[in-house]
Formats: sequence, C-alpha cells, structure tokens
Amino acid sequence: MPPDSVVAALDIGGTKIAGALVDDSGRILVRSQDPTPAREDGETVMRAVGGVLAELAASPLWSQVTGVGIAAAGPVDVSVGTVSPVNIPGWRGFPLVERVRAAVGGMPAVLIGDGVAMAAGEHWLGAARGRDNALCMVVSTGVGGGLVLGGRVHLGPTGNAGHIGHISVELDGDPCPCGSRGCVEGIAGGPGIARRALEHGWTSGPDGDTSAAAVAGAARAGHPVARASFERAARALAAGIAATAALVEIEIAVVGGGVAGAGDVLFTPLRRTLRDYATLAFVRDIEVVPALMGADAGLLGAAAAAFTWPD
Amino acid sequence: MPPDSVVAALDIGGTKIAGALVDDSGRILVRSQDPTPAREDGETVMRAVGGVLAELAASPLWSQVTGVGIAAAGPVDVSVGTVSPVNIPGWRGFPLVERVRAAVGGMPAVLIGDGVAMAAGEHWLGAARGRDNALCMVVSTGVGGGLVLGGRVHLGPTGNAGHIGHISVELDGDPCPCGSRGCVEGIAGGPGIARRALEHGWTSGPDGDTSAAAVAGAARAGHPVARASFERAARALAAGIAATAALVEIEIAVVGGGVAGAGDVLFTPLRRTLRDYATLAFVRDIEVVPALMGADAGLLGAAAAAFTWPD
Repeated sequence: MPPDSVVAALDIGGTKIAGALVDDSGRILVRSQDPTPAREDGETVMRAVGGVLAELAASPLWSQVTGVGIAAAGPVDVSVGTVSPVNIPGWRGFPLVERVRAAVGGMPAVLIGDGVAMAAGEHWLGAARGRDNALCMVVSTGVGGGLVLGGRVHLGPTGNAGHIGHISVELDGDPCPCGSRGCVEGIAGGPGIARRALEHGWTSGPDGDTSAAAVAGAARAGHPVARASFERAARALAAGIAATAALVEIEIAVVGGGVAGAGDVLFTPLRRTLRDYATLAFVRDIEVVPALMGADAGLLGAAAAAFTWPD
Repeated sequence: MPPDSVVAALDIGGTKIAGALVDDSGRILVRSQDPTPAREDGETVMRAVGGVLAELAASPLWSQVTGVGIAAAGPVDVSVGTVSPVNIPGWRGFPLVERVRAAVGGMPAVLIGDGVAMAAGEHWLGAARGRDNALCMVVSTGVGGGLVLGGRVHLGPTGNAGHIGHISVELDGDPCPCGSRGCVEGIAGGPGIARRALEHGWTSGPDGDTSAAAVAGAARAGHPVARASFERAARALAAGIAATAALVEIEIAVVGGGVAGAGDVLFTPLRRTLRDYATLAFVRDIEVVPALMGADAGLLGAAAAAFTWPD
C-alpha cells in the first residue's frame, strides 16, 4: 500500500547535500546524496542541489510528493527564503526557496535552519518526542540548536532561533569568529576541546590524532588534562542550557553531534555542572539526554517542516 | 459613560502591595496601596492583600469588574497558582490564586510573575507596543524580565520565563545568592554596581551616599571608576540581551527600573557594548530603549493578563 502523504526533504551543509522522500510516519523511502561543491560559485552549488532533487524525482513515489522541506546551514532568513551559509561562500543571500520551487515545478517549499531542523526531527521522532519545551543541540565542530516552546518548534522571525553556540558565557573570553567573545561554541565545540587539551600538555591520541574524539579517548582512559578539557566544555554547555531554561523554561536538553558521541565523558560532567548553573526552582530539574536521530535529524526535521508548515 | 470592561489588578512585591481597577484602554480608574508586612507570617501578608482588594471593592466601579490579574514577585508557579517570593518568607508555595479568588467571590483570577507583568505592561501600552519579539527588563536591586515572542507574552509552563537576571555571563564569576555564578544580576544590579565602584577606589556620593544612584551621579561627572562600573554593568546586560536574541530572536530590548534611571550613563555603553556581543546578522539590529510605564508597568501588565488570559 503506498503511503498517504510524502514530502521531499533536503539537508544542505558545507560537506554534503542529503535528500530523501519521507512519509508522514517518518519513514525514509528513498535517499539521494552528493558532496557539496562548497568552494565553487553559487550556481554550481545549486546545480548539485538540482542533481539530488532529480535523483529523488526519478522515483515512482515522486508523483505523491506534496512539498519540499529544506534544512540549510545558517544563517538563513526564512522570512525571505534566502540562505548565507558560513561554509558555502558562493551563497550569500541566495534565494534557495525560490530556486528549489522552480526545480520542482512550483511545489510548496519551506526553509528552516539546520539547528531548527535538528530540533524538529528530535521533536517529531526522537528524544524530544512528546516534550512541549525542549532545547535540542548539535555539538560537533560548531555548536547549534533549536527550541521547542509550547509544543511547537520556535523559529523566530528569520528562522535562526536556538543559536546557543553563539551566546557568551565568558564576558572576557576568547574572541570568536562570529565577532563576539567567550561563545559556547569556542569552548564546547570540537576544535576548542582539542586546542585546550593541547595547550595544557596533552600531546595526541594514537597515530598523532589531535581531534576532540582523540581527546575523548584519552579522557576515557583517565588522562587528567583530557578530562579537564571535557569538563570545561561541559561547564560552557551547562551555562548555556541553564541560560536557555531561565529565559524560556525548558524541561529537557537533547544533545547530539560528534562531540556528544563521547558519551559519558561529556554527559557525566554536563549533568553535574548543570546543577551548578541551573539553580532556580523552575530550572532545577532539566533532563539532559543524548539525541536519538543521528545524522538523519536534519532531513527528518525538514520533512516535519514540510508536513506541518506548508506555505 | 462607564467603561465597557474593568478588571482588578494587584502588584505584590516585598515592599508594597499595589492595587487598581483598570479599564480595557489601560486607564487606572481607582488605586489602593499598602506596605507589604513582608517579615510577618503568610496569613498576615494575605490579610494585607485582602485589605487592598477591599478598598478597591468599595468603589462603585467594582460591580463591573470581570476578573483579577495578579503580578507577584517570583518565583511563581502559574501552573498551580502558587507563589514563593524571595522577599516574602512567609509565602512558600502559597496558594495565592485560590486565596484571591475566595476574597473576590470566586471571580476568575490569573497570576503572572513580576518580570512577565512588566513585559505585558510595556507590550500593551509602553515601549514594546506593536513589537512582536521583545525582551523587557527591570534593572534595579535585582534584574528581572519578560519576553514577548510572536506577538504574545511568553510565560513558560510555570510563568517564570524571561529570568535574564540569573543567566551566567561569567562561567567563573562571583557566586550569586541563587547558587550559580557570574549572573547578570550580580554585575548589573544596583548593589553590584556600587560594590564594584567602592572596591576600585570610589568612596561615596554627597552625604556618604554609596548607592548605585550615587555611582551614576559620579559617572555623569566623569569619575573614571564610576564610569567603569557602569560600563561593566552594561557589558553584562549586553551579553544577556545578545544571548536572548540568539536564542529566541528579539527586535527590541526595553530596559526599566532604578538603575536604568541613570539614563545615558547606562544606555550609551549598553548600546555600544551590545555591538560587541550581538554580532550575528539576525541579532545585529536590536534596538535598546528605556521603559515607558514606570512603576505602573506591573499593575498594567497584571490587568493585561486579566483581560487576555481569563481562566
């Protein structure tokens, strides 16, 4: 029996362009993926998006597609349908919604930022399912996020709400490429974790690996400098989660992404330090849980957007 | 001609209990006020609230009253109608909504926190009027606030959203009475401003006055230590406002309260340092404006709640 309702979903980042046809129970029916030609001009990147869509359109299920959901690396501006992803310099104010609609014969298309998409995916089918007030975060090279407030994904006017990676938790902290100082991303993102460990005397993992994953391995083996670097990342995340809870009230923080893959090395100090920063009665009981949707969160969030917010 | 619709409003703080009858254009028709017997037991405090309500009920307009809006010092829990104000130790989990309803013959009563009430008042009739996404703050001894998101006051499940005073902007900062560290309130609240100036060599204003207002006077006269203390307060507020904007997208920050009464001594460095912390494209253009409603913001916000959120 064919599914009742199908949408196309795109998840466009600096590394790859993922596409899928998704039914209204969240099943991925067809997949398509290509590398992002991120260093090329904007039209070349758009041709790659068109290629991913064309592969999806070759499926016999395409005739049932009712719309397209697009998750894109930010910043985005959903109010005008444009994207300016930091890692895709050829796209600055690029009219992605208009171009995707043109590529799919004028079907409805809806754009969300990748942090919001991850939150939408975890809220639909993952660790934030059934939760009315949640922060969902991706902690990897960068730190991004999205919010669920009052049972609905909170976009904000331009679709960028939930940018927890760029709130300052150290007024006088290190400069961030964003222009601010002491941002959560600079402390808790993978490069920050690795740099801090190296600065304090950790040398490398096996085979000279100096990634955050190697720091996590060393921390798991008990290396005090590696543990301290994850502890510091955990404190920055805890302060950010506590700030979010104080500002909008959340009951759960869902943490995914490569750095979260460190498991207890991150989650144990995160839960402990959260008690240091989330002290008011209404924020004291926040749950912190790993994300469940993995790499598909963005695609499924984009699909959720297409199902629930047709334009 | 009598007004079409009238509500009773209460604003209950640690110092005074203010009451009013308010019409649906925001006119205050009758006022009543008594000191809060904050050091007495909970029933004594409740009798004082009853006295303020009785004065209002003596007005011939009382017969038109359709409900009661209550703004109370936090923490509150609007989900169960209780309050536990820090400055009123006799009230812990006090069932204020139930008691007020009993005092007014069972009329509907709605409770909001004082920060949310201030935001509701400024959104209805003040500096946030017509704005869909705003942070409204009170900066005085404490620092509180409330949010307007998508055109509506954002309560959160327990009515405590907008608690910007207790977000940490210094991971390793001074301990805060709330239990956390480096909270905005500790740096930007009046006592923090005065303490910092005294620690760095400012002695006092006229007549030995060591309040934040005296620091503001010295700053206005060019005293470098006094100016530096306001600059630091401004940076903490700027980081908090920028964090709020990154998390939920706001277009305007409305700042009231006694410390905001310092005027340009606060607002000039606040607007300047906000550019240092609010750097992403979607947060770069936040306006920062003084509150307009003064001491009546809470009362009018309570009235707004009674008009728009009858239970």
